[in-house]
Amino acid sequence: MNQPLAGPAQVPVLALGDILLVSLQGELHDGMAEQLQHDLTSRVSASGVAGVVIDISGVDMVDSFLGRVLGEIASMTRLLAAHTVIAGMRPAVAMTLVELGLTLPGLVTALDVDRALELLSSGGT
Amino acid sequence: MNQPLAGPAQVPVLALGDILLVSLQGELHDGMAEQLQHDLTSRVSASGVAGVVIDISGVDMVDSFLGRVLGEIASMTRLLAAHTVIAGMRPAVAMTLVELGLTLPGLVTALDVDRALELLSSGGT
Repeated sequence: MNQPLAGPAQVPVLALGDILLVSLQGELHDGMAEQLQHDLTSRVSASGVAGVVIDISGVDMVDSFLGRVLGEIASMTRLLAAHTVIAGMRPAVAMTLVELGLTLPGLVTALDVDRALELLSSGGT
Repeated sequence: MNQPLAGPAQVPVLALGDILLVSLQGELHDGMAEQLQHDLTSRVSASGVAGVVIDISGVDMVDSFLGRVLGEIASMTRLLAAHTVIAGMRPAVAMTLVELGLTLPGLVTALDVDRALELLSSGGT
């Protein structure tokens, strides 16, 4: 069922109280990645949210590009005093990342969104 | 930036406490719609969640197919004692739906995910 389809112009950023949630699905293209970074940083600075959760359970392949984008988002939000947690990484994705030598340093991960929210509320990041 | 891209094999269903959250993005194909309905109904019946929030802020065009899918999901979850709220509909989408004669009867909507969660927690559905 993984046929090509017209993707969204941009990835929606959902507000959950003082947390921003992004659900990445399928492939992330350059334009969408830049748009997402712009949306997240502006939303974080405007609303002063405590954290950002990026769920990648809908992503079945992470390449060096997406890895860099996620790392940049984490760094950007940290500069804006918000923590970013990557949630829902598939085991196969983790295996691929390590095999590619992409250990995503500086990225905080959680098993799922619930645990990511707990992590952010407990200040565990 | 709305170029075609390889879409996800399925739409991820995120658990937020006793709420399931789905962020629809881009187009929903038949296979993905069936998969989503199957995932949601099985998750609802297995975990006994109180509600389902489907955010469509990433959807810039709702046709009769997606309208029917959303309506079916709402009916299915209601039979399983859970309420479904559609969140984040774009004004242009609402206008298109009404022009198409698709008023989505039986569907509860909220302006955004936060308000949808409030609605579900207050039992306003």
